[in-house]
Amino acid sequence: MKILDIIRKRRSIRKYKSDSIPDDVMDRVMEAARLAPSGKNGQPWKFILVKDKEMKEKLAEASRGQMFIANAPVVIVACGFPDKSYQRQGNYMKSWSIDVACAIDHLMLQAQEDGLGTCWIGAFEEKEVKPLLNIPEDVKVLALTPLGYPDEEPHDRGRKPTNEIFCYEKYESFGSSLN
Amino acid sequence: MKILDIIRKRRSIRKYKSDSIPDDVMDRVMEAARLAPSGKNGQPWKFILVKDKEMKEKLAEASRGQMFIANAPVVIVACGFPDKSYQRQGNYMKSWSIDVACAIDHLMLQAQEDGLGTCWIGAFEEKEVKPLLNIPEDVKVLALTPLGYPDEEPHDRGRKPTNEIFCYEKYESFGSSLN
Repeated sequence: MKILDIIRKRRSIRKYKSDSIPDDVMDRVMEAARLAPSGKNGQPWKFILVKDKEMKEKLAEASRGQMFIANAPVVIVACGFPDKSYQRQGNYMKSWSIDVACAIDHLMLQAQEDGLGTCWIGAFEEKEVKPLLNIPEDVKVLALTPLGYPDEEPHDRGRKPTNEIFCYEKYESFGSSLN
Repeated sequence: MKILDIIRKRRSIRKYKSDSIPDDVMDRVMEAARLAPSGKNGQPWKFILVKDKEMKEKLAEASRGQMFIANAPVVIVACGFPDKSYQRQGNYMKSWSIDVACAIDHLMLQAQEDGLGTCWIGAFEEKEVKPLLNIPEDVKVLALTPLGYPDEEPHDRGRKPTNEIFCYEKYESFGSSLN
């Protein structure tokens, strides 16, 4: 399958089968994340794989009660190290959120190729998640995702048209209500 | 080609052929970015495609004089809209840097599949780039990348081993000097 097909078919999956994930599939998903690019190749990330049912439920509760998260066989908690990332992205920010996002993106695309579903979870309380997993003070949680075989086929949510998000040579606004 | 092969083969390319990019290839690269996921599907991004030689040189100068950037046929400037992104990622940050990073990551993977090279440029002066391209005050520049056919085959820079970046059930430090 071509990468654009994988990208086109990926959806946020909110209903999972209980089937466990074979080791070789899990290895590929992890490898895709491991090989992601990062500022100065700093790789300022760590991923916690949670399979314990009770802990998955606690993570779901800390994610505004999105309990579907706990039904996936694995929940991945993606952490970043701000202090160990490139400190001068654009000369105004640390690169860690970019770096960890790329690793998650790789992981999700590989998961999609292997027939697995994922779902970016941004609506979580970092302050609740960190103590659950003994995450140190200087480590941030960027996002969570469930990982498992999909038990639904969500519709395409649509995207902005190409001419709204690409412009040439200079910045151009599109329409009146958009940047 | 499998996505993991594409991921494995991607390198930061710092030497480009002058060959221009066919329209159908460019379309695929743009489409890959367009279809990226984002918080609440907000798509808080815009991409400026720069082909003008003089402007490419100015962008390269604003990127700590990394002049190889100007030799690629296209330079892509990836912008984000913090105020229009999801405001409560982890309940502590805005999602725009994550969102734009995913779009760039998609773009780069599609470029790789089509034989094109890219290079995350994080070492740039946002304050210098924005006025060059008339980028509004409330719009951020997250990264730049040149885009073109590679004229070099860089070595693999290596990555941390799997057991250093993945842990199970709880956060675990690895070694003494790493998180």
